[in-house]
Formats: sequence, C-alpha cells, structure tokens
Amino acid sequence: MTDWVGKDLKYVWHPYTQMKDCRNMPPLLIERAKGIKLYDTRGRFYYDTISSWWCNVHGHNNPAIKSAIKKQLDLLEHVLFAGFTHKPAIELAQKLAALAPAGLSRVFYSDNGSTSVEVALKMSFQYWHNTGERKKTKFVSLDRGYHGDTFGAMSVSGVSLFNEVFSPLFFESFKVPSPYCYRCPVGMQEGECDTDCLKPLERLLEKRSKEIAGIILEPRLMAAGGMIIYPEKYLKGAASLAKRFNVHLILDEVATAFGRTGRMFASGSAGVLADFICLSKGITSGYLPMGVTLTTDKIYKAFYADFEQKKTFYHGHTYTANPVACAAALASLEIFEKDNTLKKAAGLIPLFRERLEGFKALPFVGDVRSIGLVGALELVKDKKTKEALDFRERTGLKVYKAGLEKNLILRPLGDIIYFFLPLCVKRAELEDILDRSYSVVKKAFNG
Amino acid sequence: MTDWVGKDLKYVWHPYTQMKDCRNMPPLLIERAKGIKLYDTRGRFYYDTISSWWCNVHGHNNPAIKSAIKKQLDLLEHVLFAGFTHKPAIELAQKLAALAPAGLSRVFYSDNGSTSVEVALKMSFQYWHNTGERKKTKFVSLDRGYHGDTFGAMSVSGVSLFNEVFSPLFFESFKVPSPYCYRCPVGMQEGECDTDCLKPLERLLEKRSKEIAGIILEPRLMAAGGMIIYPEKYLKGAASLAKRFNVHLILDEVATAFGRTGRMFASGSAGVLADFICLSKGITSGYLPMGVTLTTDKIYKAFYADFEQKKTFYHGHTYTANPVACAAALASLEIFEKDNTLKKAAGLIPLFRERLEGFKALPFVGDVRSIGLVGALELVKDKKTKEALDFRERTGLKVYKAGLEKNLILRPLGDIIYFFLPLCVKRAELEDILDRSYSVVKKAFNG
Repeated sequence: MTDWVGKDLKYVWHPYTQMKDCRNMPPLLIERAKGIKLYDTRGRFYYDTISSWWCNVHGHNNPAIKSAIKKQLDLLEHVLFAGFTHKPAIELAQKLAALAPAGLSRVFYSDNGSTSVEVALKMSFQYWHNTGERKKTKFVSLDRGYHGDTFGAMSVSGVSLFNEVFSPLFFESFKVPSPYCYRCPVGMQEGECDTDCLKPLERLLEKRSKEIAGIILEPRLMAAGGMIIYPEKYLKGAASLAKRFNVHLILDEVATAFGRTGRMFASGSAGVLADFICLSKGITSGYLPMGVTLTTDKIYKAFYADFEQKKTFYHGHTYTANPVACAAALASLEIFEKDNTLKKAAGLIPLFRERLEGFKALPFVGDVRSIGLVGALELVKDKKTKEALDFRERTGLKVYKAGLEKNLILRPLGDIIYFFLPLCVKRAELEDILDRSYSVVKKAFNG
Repeated sequence: MTDWVGKDLKYVWHPYTQMKDCRNMPPLLIERAKGIKLYDTRGRFYYDTISSWWCNVHGHNNPAIKSAIKKQLDLLEHVLFAGFTHKPAIELAQKLAALAPAGLSRVFYSDNGSTSVEVALKMSFQYWHNTGERKKTKFVSLDRGYHGDTFGAMSVSGVSLFNEVFSPLFFESFKVPSPYCYRCPVGMQEGECDTDCLKPLERLLEKRSKEIAGIILEPRLMAAGGMIIYPEKYLKGAASLAKRFNVHLILDEVATAFGRTGRMFASGSAGVLADFICLSKGITSGYLPMGVTLTTDKIYKAFYADFEQKKTFYHGHTYTANPVACAAALASLEIFEKDNTLKKAAGLIPLFRERLEGFKALPFVGDVRSIGLVGALELVKDKKTKEALDFRERTGLKVYKAGLEKNLILRPLGDIIYFFLPLCVKRAELEDILDRSYSVVKKAFNG
C-alpha cells in the first residue's frame, strides 16, 4: 500500500507550516468530503469547522455547484479574457454588481484574495496618477490588518510574525491602531467609548491626506489578525473620514463577504460608499480559485481614454475570469437565492452566540466574540489582566490537536480558537460542534 | 435576445485592455471550444493561435482532462492545505519533481504565475535571512524580463509601458541587459558574439554579490518582453555566474515549461542547476488556475527548524493545491506520456520554422525567431536600420484585427506578431494557420 503521507513529506512544502512540526503531526490525508464533513482515507470524519480556510459556504460536494462546473466544462473551460469574453463572466459580473453595496458596478477578475487586493491598490494608485494628483501614492492600513501574502498585499498588512522578515522589501505605508475592543488601543472600556480609536486615523489624514491614495481595511471582522470583530460605527467613521479627506476606501471582503457576517457583504448594512471591494474565498463557495475587485464608474472612467494617453490599466492573469470558476460562483449565488441561505443561517446565529457565551465560564477564555456564524475565543493566561499566554507553549496548537481527536478542525490563530462555519451547517451539527469544542477547550487546561 | 456584449461593456473591466478601444472593437463572445478552435455564439471559429495566453497545451475540451476533473469533483473539490493533504497534490508533486531538472524535488503550490514568482522571491530572501547572510536582500533581473503583475513580481520585471506607473512602489532591484540578439544590447553581430551580453551581469556580481539574494530570468524565451529567444549558452553562462557568486538562480518557466520550447522544461537541456523554478499557465493545460514553485532540498532545509526559531515560511493562499486543479494537471501530464505529445510536436517544428522563415521575404518583417512551436515576427519601419514603427500607429493592432477576419488570434506584443501554438496542433491546421497569417501580414502593409 502506498505510504501517501510519507510521500507528502518527501515532496510537498505546505503553506503556513513549520514542516518540522509534521514529524509529530503529519498532515491528515483527506479523500472525500460531503456537506460540512471531510473524510480521511480511513473513513474518519472531521467537521470542517473553519470552512477550509473560510471559503466553503454551501458545503462540500454540493450537487448544484458540481453540476454547473461539469456543464461548463463541456462547453468552454477557458479562453483568454482580453479581446474575448464569455457568458459566465458577464452574468457573474452583473450579479455581483447587483448584490454589491451601492456604486460598485464594475468587475475586474483575478485569481485569489492577494491579487484582488493588488488590483485595488494598483487601481487606486493609478487613479490619482491618471487624474493628475500624483502625490497621492501611499496607503493607510490597520496595524492588525491582513490582506494577503504577495508583496503589495503584505505592504499594507500589519507587520506580524507572518511577514516581518520580508518587511525590508515592503513599500512604505501608514499604520493606524485596530478597533480591537478586547484590547482597546486607546485604553477605553466597553460602553464608555465613542470610537476614540478613530482619532489616530483622523489625525493622520489631517496631516498627510495629500500623500494618501487610499485606506484599506476588512469591514467588521479582521480575520487573520485574530478574528477581531468591531462595531459598525468604526466602519462608518472610517468611511466618512475617507470621504472627507478625499482618499479611497478599499474594503477587503475576501473573508467577510458571502454571508459570513450574516449579510452578503459585511459592509452592506453600514451604508458606506466604498471605492473598491475585494472578493475571493467564498465567491466560488470554496470550489475553485477566483478573485474579484469591484469598483465604481468614477474610478473606471479615469482609465477610459484614448490609447495614446497611456491611462490603460495594465494588469492581468492568464486564468482571469476562468469560465469554470465563474460557473461555480454563479451556481453558488443561485443557491443563496433558492435555498434562502442567509435566512437559514440567520436562524442559527442566536443559538451560536448564546452557546459561545457559555465558554466564558471556562478559565483562560478571556474574550468571546462573534458575528454571523464566525466566533472566536481568545485564550489568555490571566482573565483579569488579559495577560497573553507564552507563545512558546503553543496552547492554541494543543487545543487544535485535542480538537482533531474530537473530529473538529480548531486550527488556531496563535491562542485564538475560532469557528468559521459553512453557512449550510444544520442545527444539530452546530450543537454537536459546540458540545465537542466545549469539552476540548475545558480539558485543554484541566488535563 | 440578450445583448451579451453590451452587458459585458457595462459591467466588466478586461485585463490589459484600454476599454475605450472596445467601442470600435468589442470583445468577441466565445461560447464553446474544441481542440485548437474557439467558437463564438454565431458559430464562427477562431484558431487559438496563442493558446489562450500561452496556457492551453492539449487543446480545448479535452475528454481526458475533463473526465479527470469530473471524477475529482465527485470526491473532494477542496480542503485547506495546512494540516491536511490529499492524493492529487501528493501525486502531482511527485511527478513534477521527477520531471523537473535535477535537484528540484520540493513543491510549493499557489494560484498563478505571479504568486509562483512571489513565493520564489520570498523563499530566496528568507533563505539568506535564516542562514544568517542578512545582507543578501536584492534581486537581479533582465531589463526586458516579465514575471507577473503583483508588486513583488513587477519589482523584478523590466520597467515598461505595462508597469512604469507603479514603479515608485517597487522594491529596488538590479537590471541587466537582455540577450536580445536582434537588437544586441552590446552591439555585436550574430556569429561574432561570445555572449558578451553576460558581461554586465558578471561585473554587477563582482561588485555587489554580497547584497544579492538571487537572479530571476525566463529560460530561453522571454515571452511578454517580446518573444525574445536567446541561445542556451546565455542561460548556461548566467547559471554558472549565479553559482560562482553564491546567488540563487530563479527560473521563471511560467510560459516556457510543458513543452513550449520543445522540451518539458526550457531549462531542461542546459544542465543548469536552478534553486527555484516557477510554473503556472500550461501546468493544467489551460483548464484551471494553479501555480507551483519548485525548489531544492537545500533551500527547504534552511526553513526546517524548531518552531521557536522562527524560520517558518509563512505564505499561503486559500486555494493552494486545489484538488480539482491538481487532477487537471495530472491528467495533462498523463497525456504527455500516453500521446507522446513532445515527440508529435517535435515532428512539426522543422515545418513551422521553415514556414516562418518565409515571412522574412515580406517588407517590414525585420526579424523572425522561433523555438519549439513558439515563433515571432518583429515588424519594423526599416528592415535595414531596424527602426521601430511609431507606437501610435498601432500596427500590431491592425494585424490583429485583420487576423480575426481570417479566424486567427494574432494578439500582438506591441509590433511583434507571434504564434504560441497548442502542442496538439495538427500538420494541416499548422499549415492553414501559417497560410492565413502570411496573407494577413502581407496585406497589412499593402492594403
């Protein structure tokens, strides 16, 4: 019998993985999946508690999405997207424009979240170039923001363990404090605050807005930064500052769109007017890679000119608007409509929230926060002082290992344990996941 | 009836396209494809003369690839690739390692060519960091090289019309002249040269190698830079300089691998020892987005350490090693074996070359060059002085338009007309394509 895992360790270098850790914890060999369950080659199942890195929406092996992909394969798997077009891309662009918050009517396709961000940064930068405001070349981002792993995306992410080694090659950008309520950057208590954490952004814009092209942030949920969930008023405030100081608002909805926060777009309810929205992950419901940058007609028009004026946006990837990925995305959007996905998921949110609150009773659970079907437990050494655990103890990893024993994927962000559930999760599954998780987290500190 | 093209122009922003050009030249609506032919909604066909941006290998709608994708969809469409693995990724990694030039045994997956390059740059940079040589932070590239559109990839590309607007945000890198024989950067004539164009690279390394992490180049064929084809001895010379001066050799085979130059890898015959090879485009035969960075055990080991040492490579994309894309890639490699793809294509190369030579007789065709089933015609104002055509005349575009009338996709690079043929092209198709192209190029200047 083939030793697949042995072969894996011989040839594969896994993402975000210290490969030496695989000696004690080899990767699990997944063979098939159905709904929210992954199955390994021995038939053992794992709840896909984190939607396979926050991308799966309607569950694995979904008949409608599969069938749409197969149908498209029989017609046209791919064609270059310059000079040529096809119905799946056109239809998807139209649907995204219809669903997106107001004003975002223009679709630029790419391949993943990082590229969707790079496209937004490049468009924003070139917009000011094309319109003659050539000093507006810098970006502002949140100090715990995460926008991807390519150099442009890293340059506007918070500097962390993940990317600090590469920082000498980043382009300069301004960082402002994140609205991390549990660890308030401006020392306020919940209840007394008036989004005081917006002040540093305001002061920065007052001083430097003439050099600033845009602000990039993840609306409502800073995912990789630690599942930091923040109030709508911060988002509204940031949007209003962007407008007031004439800088672009770039919303990175790579993780947050497609129902994660309870709405199609996390920014949808706030009435904010963004200049760019970046999409990926859930766009194909976790089937195939795809990125999208949505923008406004105002931005588009600043590039629309006679060829000789050199205002063209030169960016493209070979598989841009891949028809098969477009077909998957269209099928996913159709499920949202036909199955009332958002409404069904909304029915579970109160239960999810209530059950999460129960984790607060456990020692070491410093904070519990949630939005939509995303929830996080921040583990700390001391609940009173909020002192963090020693990173070398790798507590999050211990919980992850214990979770796997209980058929859960509690892949942590440092010492933050989180749930990022597929929207198709059923009530009984949700209860089972939370029961199992509770016993895992409880035992992690007792054992 | 739906006005699909009208809708396209309302919602879509196409890559590398001055959208104002679409007023006179709207995108063509492709509905299906088969072999090397694309069909629009009216049933009109177009030879996919450029392999849909250099990615299609075995033709469209290939039954074996389609069936492999469908089979995989019924098992597992996707799972996160950290902590988890699956057979398609393992098998593909093993096969790529077996096919790749010597020493490249480790596979890191990503989503496209740009990310495969960003991964190589980041690994090279961090390798020196992890091994204590922290001054080695810069990269060298060719002044007409092209490596992608994300910021890291752009920073090591030649500065051109495509990216110059973004150059204030590039990280610093060294540029050396390209081995562009038709326009020799060091003023030599063909025949008398001893790869004198390597001298600037040698001088740079003599002076600055202690600051240099790696050299990146496209082996044998600089595609986006103008289908510049250069001799093996330049590649060998560059590789030997890299070794001598202890800098990494990063080969960008995104366009060149999978048979384009007549071999599986363009660098395969030169016996060069690369530290990194970047792959994408042809890897799935043009079906689905996928990127791969191959590297050596030596590089891998510099990251393999106890977690606390902070040597981990933190990079990843959600759809990394997507099982469906892996299945497509495996099916494509199987076709190479079963159908003897390389041998079949090789049988057509002499005819292709001979027929291309015939274009030299035409006025304005300054240079004809080819490698494998890739060939280029460089149009010039004056064949004797090699004076370029005025870019505002957009001669290349005129040929493109005339080509479409003859069912050809002669999408130009400036005033360079090229063929980048699917390897499955049949003799009769090849002859037909060249007959039609000849008449198009001939008429373009007579008409």
